[in-house]
Amino acid sequence: MPRYAYVNGRYMPHRQAATHIEDRGFQFADGVYEVVACIEGHLADERGHLDRLERSLKELKIAMPAPRRTISHIMREVLRRNHFSNAALYIQVTRGVWKRDFAFPPANLKPSLIMTARPFKFADNPSRKTGLKAVTVPDIRWKRPDIKTTSLLAQAMAKQEALSKGAQEAWLVDEKGFVTEGSSNNAWIVTDKGVLVTRPATNEILRGVTRTALLTLKDIKFEERAFKPAEVYKAQEAFTSSATALIMPIVELDGRKIGNGKPGPITMRLYEAYMDYVRSRKAQVAWKA
Amino acid sequence: MPRYAYVNGRYMPHRQAATHIEDRGFQFADGVYEVVACIEGHLADERGHLDRLERSLKELKIAMPAPRRTISHIMREVLRRNHFSNAALYIQVTRGVWKRDFAFPPANLKPSLIMTARPFKFADNPSRKTGLKAVTVPDIRWKRPDIKTTSLLAQAMAKQEALSKGAQEAWLVDEKGFVTEGSSNNAWIVTDKGVLVTRPATNEILRGVTRTALLTLKDIKFEERAFKPAEVYKAQEAFTSSATALIMPIVELDGRKIGNGKPGPITMRLYEAYMDYVRSRKAQVAWKA
Repeated sequence: MPRYAYVNGRYMPHRQAATHIEDRGFQFADGVYEVVACIEGHLADERGHLDRLERSLKELKIAMPAPRRTISHIMREVLRRNHFSNAALYIQVTRGVWKRDFAFPPANLKPSLIMTARPFKFADNPSRKTGLKAVTVPDIRWKRPDIKTTSLLAQAMAKQEALSKGAQEAWLVDEKGFVTEGSSNNAWIVTDKGVLVTRPATNEILRGVTRTALLTLKDIKFEERAFKPAEVYKAQEAFTSSATALIMPIVELDGRKIGNGKPGPITMRLYEAYMDYVRSRKAQVAWKA
Repeated sequence: MPRYAYVNGRYMPHRQAATHIEDRGFQFADGVYEVVACIEGHLADERGHLDRLERSLKELKIAMPAPRRTISHIMREVLRRNHFSNAALYIQVTRGVWKRDFAFPPANLKPSLIMTARPFKFADNPSRKTGLKAVTVPDIRWKRPDIKTTSLLAQAMAKQEALSKGAQEAWLVDEKGFVTEGSSNNAWIVTDKGVLVTRPATNEILRGVTRTALLTLKDIKFEERAFKPAEVYKAQEAFTSSATALIMPIVELDGRKIGNGKPGPITMRLYEAYMDYVRSRKAQVAWKA
């Protein structure tokens, strides 16, 4: 069965889904994206993702491609046509199709809106049972990683470097030696003193929607501050947060075991709390596959 | 008459030229490009551009999408089908189409190869008669601008910022206060002492093919070193070099006139020398429109 995608007003088989070669997303990485988890028929943090989409577009002076309620409708329709209830929904908006020029096209150009989805195992992700190994990699990204653009080459290279070193994840380290975030997720530790720590969401990292949700879970105490790899090495636990991997234990950094080298109890408690949060939210999709 | 483009083995009307939404060039800016000038039927510095294309791909561990002679053939065929003898030929190579994942796809994945062209006035570019105004803009790009990737959002934003300030070009300035390069070209000055200066081609700038050609013109003395805007303000002349604008006078930076505020004699002499160089080369295309 072919999967279905949405491209600029049309639903079509994923295999045929294409954009023009002069889409600015293709020629200039001039666009943004979101990945929204559909978990057991619930759209996780839909509102947070659409808020961030709107914010990213505003920073780049790209118009919303459609009203929010239309985007929400298309999200559900893509999931419905695919009969997915556990899926990663991918949304991309670009500045649109225009003759190639570094200068922005006229402000009234219609932005491109593209969505597609893939089945994804959330609750049963086997990596969560073992945890992942990570390595540190220099953060060579541009100076606006707070905008969720498709300028993702540095992140892809970091991830690939991790894989080439026998790890599964990369933690990026800035010029001052502090961890910024993971290749496509936010980085967290539980320090040797038992304090939950993550880096403040300034212009130097992406403000993760899952990160924000975690910070609002009532019974968790945390500090927002930068930390160095040396502090991670002696931490009790470490994990990442993201829309698809959700809360993912990191059990090793640069070959050094974190804690006892297994997913930690606070990490797993946060994972369960996040899943309860998703299931309790009203953002269900309109059907059950 | 529709223009023609080339996409992954097929020539087609430019209007229909499209790539899959999961092309990594679209989702990750995971690809590179070149722009080659076809001037009066001569392909300017074809070899330099193909050398750099190969080097960019190697840095990103992307395979050449076809042998060089095949790429050269397609370049000529795109120009021929369009009946262009003065045109900017655009070549883009991406890592290919693969299910979305930050990790690189298998190394044997076929890269995407896309070409298109637009008519372009080289000798008669009206901007060369008046020169352009530039403004300085912070260089917020990633740390590998030496690779000619399509991660061009920072450059597009810089160019747009220049336009919004009534200028036509942006000169990027690094954290130490030195000019790196223009938004899509290399930056040059003729100092108040009459010395031609451009920044060394390290990992901090793109090694322009036109820049390299200029440096090989026999009768020109120059220094390769970084310079600050303050030195530009009091320079005798300033200009940019690039594949399409060729040698373009900059007559104002940040509202300060450079020299007498008109294109300078050394700049124009270099432009003529470069044009002679292009016309004298053997890299003609196979027809004359």
